[in-house]
Amino acid sequence: MRTVVPFDASDPKTRLAPVLDGDERRAFARIMLGAVLDSLRSLGREPAVIATESIDCASPVIVDDRPLDVAVNDVLETADGPIAVVMADLALATPDALDRLSAPDDDVVLVPGRGGGTNAIVARHPDFRVDYHDGSIRDHRRIAKEVVGDDGTIAEVDSFRLATDVDEPADLAEVLLHGEGASATWLRAKGFELSVTGGRASVIR
Amino acid sequence: MRTVVPFDASDPKTRLAPVLDGDERRAFARIMLGAVLDSLRSLGREPAVIATESIDCASPVIVDDRPLDVAVNDVLETADGPIAVVMADLALATPDALDRLSAPDDDVVLVPGRGGGTNAIVARHPDFRVDYHDGSIRDHRRIAKEVVGDDGTIAEVDSFRLATDVDEPADLAEVLLHGEGASATWLRAKGFELSVTGGRASVIR
Repeated sequence: MRTVVPFDASDPKTRLAPVLDGDERRAFARIMLGAVLDSLRSLGREPAVIATESIDCASPVIVDDRPLDVAVNDVLETADGPIAVVMADLALATPDALDRLSAPDDDVVLVPGRGGGTNAIVARHPDFRVDYHDGSIRDHRRIAKEVVGDDGTIAEVDSFRLATDVDEPADLAEVLLHGEGASATWLRAKGFELSVTGGRASVIR
Repeated sequence: MRTVVPFDASDPKTRLAPVLDGDERRAFARIMLGAVLDSLRSLGREPAVIATESIDCASPVIVDDRPLDVAVNDVLETADGPIAVVMADLALATPDALDRLSAPDDDVVLVPGRGGGTNAIVARHPDFRVDYHDGSIRDHRRIAKEVVGDDGTIAEVDSFRLATDVDEPADLAEVLLHGEGASATWLRAKGFELSVTGGRASVIR
């Protein structure tokens, strides 16, 4: 299945600005992207990156500086088979977790992200289109229902690892708690450690 | 498999105090507990509640006002077979999600909760004990490794629905986004609605 990973190469992870400066955010975003691509390739996929500008990368890169929805929908419109769209910031995404995307053979498969996002999609129906604003999972459910109609099927993959995209400082705690790969290693090298007093874990640096 | 659901009947969900008063928190905690118990019973389980004080409930209630760890470990120590421990505030836990607890036949099965918690456990090894402080998933992993040794096995269930315990106001957004049951209905009746501007969804009342 053709798999694309959209990536903001210019100003990624702005909501991490309280804890990482601009260069660090670009570096960390690239680390997370690389880990997602490695995991996909280990499953036999050949992912392509849709990046806002040219980047040096072990996978093919499609440079498209249009807004995310336009760039992804262009891929969906011109596809001649199923397309998977996987977010680049899934720092807990193991090969096992990503392999769960392949299991359902439904016309549209959605993976919710925390806070209402949509962290991965498999579109087997030619008319499915994305709409990645805030709370996008609700709209993707609606769009999926509209396009598959009464005869089609929709599935959701229930995965904590795939639901955990890394956008906010508190998300870094999840990486340190559950990540065994390059993203956790990078954070530890930058001096981040867990702080687990009073409710949920957070990070200190 | 014997299944117990610990429940703080006296002062539950204190971190929801910014948005719910004491009576509301007690009512909402009972609604979530009831939904978890209903889902477990729909799977053929006969869950028992371990409550800090007597409550009116459709499932058997063991009243134990000792600290959570002591009460749960007492159940584990006196068990003559596998024990599942499921948190009472898993408002997104559908029967399908809870059924995933039964699939692995490992000696210890852990379900991580957001922020380092442990939202469900299946203990088949007689020596496993709980330690539910902050960041408990790390200690439960360590305890599990110690008791199962080289020959035993440990599994984790990767579920967003089971990882989402409801402790903080932001968690209510997940209930409104993904919950189809009594907890979401109760929140809507109390005037909560989603606010999805600027990153992750939150709630307004």
